Amino acid sequence: MARDTTADPRQEILRASARLFQQQGYDGTSMNDVASALNLSKGGLYHHFQSKEEILFELMNHAMDISEERVIGVVKTVADPEERLRMLIRRHIGVVLSERDREITVMLHENHPLSPSLRRRINARKKDYVHFVENLVAEVQRARGVVPRVTPRAAAFALLGMINWIYQWYRPLGTLDQDTLVQQYTEIFFRGAF
Amino acid sequence: MARDTTADPRQEILRASARLFQQQGYDGTSMNDVASALNLSKGGLYHHFQSKEEILFELMNHAMDISEERVIGVVKTVADPEERLRMLIRRHIGVVLSERDREITVMLHENHPLSPSLRRRINARKKDYVHFVENLVAEVQRARGVVPRVTPRAAAFALLGMINWIYQWYRPLGTLDQDTLVQQYTEIFFRGAF
Repeated sequence: MARDTTADPRQEILRASARLFQQQGYDGTSMNDVASALNLSKGGLYHHFQSKEEILFELMNHAMDISEERVIGVVKTVADPEERLRMLIRRHIGVVLSERDREITVMLHENHPLSPSLRRRINARKKDYVHFVENLVAEVQRARGVVPRVTPRAAAFALLGMINWIYQWYRPLGTLDQDTLVQQYTEIFFRGAF
Repeated sequence: MARDTTADPRQEILRASARLFQQQGYDGTSMNDVASALNLSKGGLYHHFQSKEEILFELMNHAMDISEERVIGVVKTVADPEERLRMLIRRHIGVVLSERDREITVMLHENHPLSPSLRRRINARKKDYVHFVENLVAEVQRARGVVPRVTPRAAAFALLGMINWIYQWYRPLGTLDQDTLVQQYTEIFFRGAF
């Protein structure tokens, strides 16, 4: 994995594009803008990505890779279901608040024009993530052995909404720091769903 | 209020613009596109709105008007704090799921280029809404008379995240219909925050 080196030109192009899309909008950014930002020739850019849509699609894919690696990948190593869910909440909040990745992960939530077939591939990955959370909630409910009052599906959507929405209001110097947020959201969700 | 007539040209322009912004993106829509969609001359359009940014700003303002009228306005007439909060959850979910208004309200959540002074005015209205929810949560906590484990602020953000996120995944023919969603989210939030 070359994420932390600067030697992977595709990664650099994706990162620069994400920044430009945030600053001036997806539609307001041209392939020329991307090439200029990286001191690349237009031919150099097209060698890596054939279109802006391909960049958008790969950005979304990369955002899903980040979530799968840093959340699911770690969480899966935890045996106890409750601990696994606590870890998922902490890790997912960490991804949302990661300064380095925010410009990339936010792309998943915006309404940009992607062809139906590419849109379906991203949506399939999002659905897999929701199902993972849903199954984990069900597992914790079973482990607790009480009759659940909420469905794992509604609970999964509620949790992902709470967390994915953070980027809309979070300010690094605000009163809610990351640790407090993890503690409070874990408290709300565990009491709410179990 | 002329919302339900078709005689208010500004309302019609806002509604048509919201649809175009959804379909082809904000940057991908020109003032010409808006005029054509309504069979207006360009002069006719500029008579009502001087720029696309003004349309975007007024759309966001209108989305806040909708929330204030249909959620806060109704909720304020309820005396009991718990009932008021239950009503707020039901009403806010109703606004998010309103087919008629979705194209307008979704504009509040997308990252579109608005000048700093206009952005501040919209953000101030959003903050007022968060504070209303936060105060209501605090009032319910006081009424219950138990030592709260979560802060009204974290709880307010969690609730708004759960609800405002719905548009990202909700499908009208899916397994979670609107009534079930209201019931499940109310259950999760009341158990989670109190």
